Amino acid sequence: MKNWFFSSLFALFFLALGFSQQLKSPNENLIMSFTLLNDGTPSYSLTYKGKEVIKPSKLGLELKNDKISLLNGFAMTDSKTSTFDETWTPVWGEVAKIRNNYNELAVTLKQNETNRQLVIRFRLFNDGLGFRYEFPAQNNLVYFIIKEEHTQFAMTGDHTAFWIAGDYDTQEYDYTTSKLSEIRGLSKGAISSNASQTPFSPTGVQTALMMKTDDGIYINLHEAALINYACMHLNLDDKNMVFESWLTPNSNGDKGQMQAPCNTPWRTIMVSDDARDILASKITLNLNDPCKIEDTSWIKPVKYVGVWWEMITGKSSWSYTNDFPAIQLGVTDYSKAQPNGTHAANTEHVKQYIDFAADNGFDAVLVEGWNEGWEDWFGHAKDYVFDFVTPYPDFDVIGVHEYAKSKGVKMIMHHETSAAIRNYERHLDKAFQFMKDHGYDAVKTGYVGNIVPVGEHHYSQWTNNHYQYVLEKAVDYQIMINGHEAVRPTGICRTYPNLIGNESARGTEFQAFGGSKPNHVTILPFTRLIGGPMDYTPGIFEMDISKLNPNNHSHVNSTLANQLALYVTMYSPLQMAADLPENYNRFTDAFQFIKDVAIDWDESYYLEAEPGEYITVARKAKGSNNWFIGNVNGLTSRASSIKLDFLEKGKKYEATIYADAKEAHYKTNPQAYTIQKIKVTNKSKINQVSVPGGGYAISIIEKNK
Amino acid sequence: MKNWFFSSLFALFFLALGFSQQLKSPNENLIMSFTLLNDGTPSYSLTYKGKEVIKPSKLGLELKNDKISLLNGFAMTDSKTSTFDETWTPVWGEVAKIRNNYNELAVTLKQNETNRQLVIRFRLFNDGLGFRYEFPAQNNLVYFIIKEEHTQFAMTGDHTAFWIAGDYDTQEYDYTTSKLSEIRGLSKGAISSNASQTPFSPTGVQTALMMKTDDGIYINLHEAALINYACMHLNLDDKNMVFESWLTPNSNGDKGQMQAPCNTPWRTIMVSDDARDILASKITLNLNDPCKIEDTSWIKPVKYVGVWWEMITGKSSWSYTNDFPAIQLGVTDYSKAQPNGTHAANTEHVKQYIDFAADNGFDAVLVEGWNEGWEDWFGHAKDYVFDFVTPYPDFDVIGVHEYAKSKGVKMIMHHETSAAIRNYERHLDKAFQFMKDHGYDAVKTGYVGNIVPVGEHHYSQWTNNHYQYVLEKAVDYQIMINGHEAVRPTGICRTYPNLIGNESARGTEFQAFGGSKPNHVTILPFTRLIGGPMDYTPGIFEMDISKLNPNNHSHVNSTLANQLALYVTMYSPLQMAADLPENYNRFTDAFQFIKDVAIDWDESYYLEAEPGEYITVARKAKGSNNWFIGNVNGLTSRASSIKLDFLEKGKKYEATIYADAKEAHYKTNPQAYTIQKIKVTNKSKINQVSVPGGGYAISIIEKNK
Repeated sequence: MKNWFFSSLFALFFLALGFSQQLKSPNENLIMSFTLLNDGTPSYSLTYKGKEVIKPSKLGLELKNDKISLLNGFAMTDSKTSTFDETWTPVWGEVAKIRNNYNELAVTLKQNETNRQLVIRFRLFNDGLGFRYEFPAQNNLVYFIIKEEHTQFAMTGDHTAFWIAGDYDTQEYDYTTSKLSEIRGLSKGAISSNASQTPFSPTGVQTALMMKTDDGIYINLHEAALINYACMHLNLDDKNMVFESWLTPNSNGDKGQMQAPCNTPWRTIMVSDDARDILASKITLNLNDPCKIEDTSWIKPVKYVGVWWEMITGKSSWSYTNDFPAIQLGVTDYSKAQPNGTHAANTEHVKQYIDFAADNGFDAVLVEGWNEGWEDWFGHAKDYVFDFVTPYPDFDVIGVHEYAKSKGVKMIMHHETSAAIRNYERHLDKAFQFMKDHGYDAVKTGYVGNIVPVGEHHYSQWTNNHYQYVLEKAVDYQIMINGHEAVRPTGICRTYPNLIGNESARGTEFQAFGGSKPNHVTILPFTRLIGGPMDYTPGIFEMDISKLNPNNHSHVNSTLANQLALYVTMYSPLQMAADLPENYNRFTDAFQFIKDVAIDWDESYYLEAEPGEYITVARKAKGSNNWFIGNVNGLTSRASSIKLDFLEKGKKYEATIYADAKEAHYKTNPQAYTIQKIKVTNKSKINQVSVPGGGYAISIIEKNK
Repeated sequence: MKNWFFSSLFALFFLALGFSQQLKSPNENLIMSFTLLNDGTPSYSLTYKGKEVIKPSKLGLELKNDKISLLNGFAMTDSKTSTFDETWTPVWGEVAKIRNNYNELAVTLKQNETNRQLVIRFRLFNDGLGFRYEFPAQNNLVYFIIKEEHTQFAMTGDHTAFWIAGDYDTQEYDYTTSKLSEIRGLSKGAISSNASQTPFSPTGVQTALMMKTDDGIYINLHEAALINYACMHLNLDDKNMVFESWLTPNSNGDKGQMQAPCNTPWRTIMVSDDARDILASKITLNLNDPCKIEDTSWIKPVKYVGVWWEMITGKSSWSYTNDFPAIQLGVTDYSKAQPNGTHAANTEHVKQYIDFAADNGFDAVLVEGWNEGWEDWFGHAKDYVFDFVTPYPDFDVIGVHEYAKSKGVKMIMHHETSAAIRNYERHLDKAFQFMKDHGYDAVKTGYVGNIVPVGEHHYSQWTNNHYQYVLEKAVDYQIMINGHEAVRPTGICRTYPNLIGNESARGTEFQAFGGSKPNHVTILPFTRLIGGPMDYTPGIFEMDISKLNPNNHSHVNSTLANQLALYVTMYSPLQMAADLPENYNRFTDAFQFIKDVAIDWDESYYLEAEPGEYITVARKAKGSNNWFIGNVNGLTSRASSIKLDFLEKGKKYEATIYADAKEAHYKTNPQAYTIQKIKVTNKSKINQVSVPGGGYAISIIEKNK
């Protein structure tokens, strides 16, 4: 209370002096105050429903070889306010239409000593704040190098956070839930082994960062529109509970090569006392530029199966032969090699997947390991590692394509780049043309291992520039991109909706690499999915991986019902049924849900949510009156109680409920599920108990009179 | 004498033990001894006509994260000798046919502790030794990283050396002539300012390194076939007078990413008591693979003029306008810009050059500054700096092309990359196709400034890989490459004869940047030209640069006659008449030599040569009986006396001698020259005095009876 009183006084004082500017959200719940401190440092703070949620926090950037930098010594020379309220239609999404409504404040600052100008633009939505730095065209600031950005987010207390350690090269860590003050002590243990990793601080974390205050306020920090800039991490001053931006460096240590006029990405702060608002927030998309692609008719959501999980579990191999210690593409003669007998991407096996896809209504089949080079693809920083166009002797590109076409199924291409980004760019046009020539519309790209050229990082400006280059070139070829191991998304799919997915977090594959925490999927939508959909590749029905590969004792820490729910709770226009057909054939009744579930939506309602504990969401399939509900549950059994008041009044529906059996448990009894059919209307309620690591999935089909 | 005795004893002893291998050149003047030292370190030494020229020198490589490395612990498991004698025909060259004759010794070494194999292959020619490391396909050595190569060249004394400081990013230094022991003290002063430079050691020097012993033996150290490896410099242990290889690092410090089977480049040691043998040596070419291009009909020597010198001198600008502090290609609207009035690459001006070329029998016109982006091309590590296809508003690509075509003249393209190598590769196919679409067959490429990505070096394995990528892609488009600021050549033009030139040394432009030493061109053929031709761009007739640009007080440290001679002494299939047409028009009689001189040769004879002092060479034009002679002179006046006994017996010729006038001097009276016509036969002699920085040029035309 005292805090509020004094900060209001403070704000009024500066308002009066004219050094302070205030901005309110459309519903006035959020109030942002911008102030220049005595030494001309720009600073902002944020209150929510009268309570401070962001204490006064400094803004600014440190420049290389520049003692003055862009940190202080500013005076405000202009400030403009405006309002924006528009509704736009995404090409695909959780909802058919998205409202973009904010009040904006743009302050122009001039640095006395250098005559340099900086604009900070704030957009305050009902569910949060976005702001960015803009560097207008001017003579005194043209080319400059960012040494570090110093954007602060001063927390009001020792909040609970759901975090992964800051890292320049991977996001594939399990989440840790702890107080902010505990991050330092837990950081080392939070860093598991990875193919490419570069942690940088014991109090560094990645965004989107999800937090909850002791007062029950949810705060989420992320960025939007990360284009031509380095990925932002946050470093915590755990004495004062102040987060500060920490950018990913280029190989020479510089954090940004800038040429004015230009902007930084938006830094976003979502705030609500209702966790569902965080999940439903469209701030990230709304801060991105509108769609730049004129004709988007070639961009379509995809439900697919694939030759992949058997390699991830170690049952099969990506590689074709064990004959060679190393490969020289174009020189190594595969026709003379002894097949290793475990190469899954062979024509006959792939055709089985095409049959399975066709029989079960899937759009496409992904095939990994179809091309020369997998024998030594990993761990050597190899430059010319793949050419993306030469199949193994046992993979008939044309034959497979024709067979798929005859069955009405598309093939999804795979471009594992081995993080050799120059090599990928050198082959990109040929690789994309090859796709078009053989009927591929979508490609899963991968960046496993350290970036080559060695010394670069996965999330630097230099490498982010590469991902963007690939995405934009894909537009020329009408190709959809699903980028694995790339920088985590920041809403760019609004501008380039051919970016239909990323992995860029700890996905289902880690269930075969030792397992993920059972509540992992109750956190991901609050963190990884804030910036865009995730190709989480769910749908695992066999949790005991030793049944696929006796040498792999990993266990999928999820019940079968939870796996079904993921198709609804982990929003993505790209959804894989990742397990092997034979495992689906053992549970065809449960598999029915995956066959039925939609992948594009008119409406979405987050019914209940608590990070780390549970998420329940209902979605209406695009262009239909059918609904799908998903619930994922955390570490303790929980009774979920939901109203179906989103259904259309007066209509009758049949709900099929796929749920944990009473005795189910993610560890000891994951495959125990029940299927129930009931009639429902918009007056109905559903009560369902979810076990640890469990959940439920419901398909609600409109019934004719 | 004593040295010789003991080293022979030493050699015999080890020969007897079987730990030593000997190799003789075809004429037995050179004898190489290979030995394994007690600790299994491979070592070699070299004698010439019974005298030691290379003392026992160690061989080997240090590997990253490998304590054992490939330095010692070897045993010899095999050794094979063979002889090679073949004559081959270059596509262009100093001579029509080249004999490749050597004796070879290939020793196979096995490292006891690791079971790893290494082959060292020695080829001993009459004029020198070449050797390289080979890493055969094997299980115990597949992927490895070179931390440093440790190839020694142990000198027998404190030789005189003609050197430039070792540097990862430039070769554009003036040569220093000194004792080896003096390098350390002179190194700092030998490093002049450059757009991109990274010296690494006070006793580091670049190759080709030219030396002369007190006994009058000439020794030259260089490398051949630098492909997929880092450029080798030499670092001198000036206590023991031992040079050791010092590779150029990648941005992360690694010096080589290797995958067996592979080879290093050849390390070459040319030896003779006659300096002319060094100039005439074909070792570098002979150690490269034969031509890989099937149809070479599109590869042709080029004599050209260009819109260039006026910008180099500062008379004109590459840029079009002064309106913008920075350019965003595709965004910046040049059509609205105010022309700066100094942009030389405008259609009208270029047509004047086309006229001049056509009137004077030149093949082509180079135009620099034709394309958008020059306003801020330099010094900003800018990534998207050029697109290579968008002309300025005042340069009509199609119009210029058609005009040139109508006049029988080709246009030479210019691709200044600003060292942004990823940007160049991204645009390469479009840039090359643009060339083909508009009739360009050849391109001058440039890499001015620090390599982008920042942190990489011009001569690292990573960047050398780029130059090679460009060269090989150019073959697909039938495009000839003239690479400026690239790594200095190492004979790759045998394998890829579309590499018709490089700058990669201190060229004529430096005469406008303050001047080069007057004897510079008496050293370059012993150093820079050992690996391939240089686009030296000679032919400057106006030595007082302030006459072109009052603000530039630079002076060309050469007489006019010396400038003419360069067309013969600086062998290149690509020769520019670099000055402005108006300056040629002032001296049309002297200009006649440039019009007449051939650029492709059947025979070449170095008549006399002393590094730093003088070079006189006679060449027979390809497919004709005409000869051209050039003499360049150093710092003191000198009487040159040459026999024309290379002319055909019984034939009559008319010789036109362009020489320094008696009172000429490079500094005070450079433009004083004489032209004399005399009748000559193969019995004739010519005596001619060359002044400091002077020389003479002679065209010898066969006369009908």
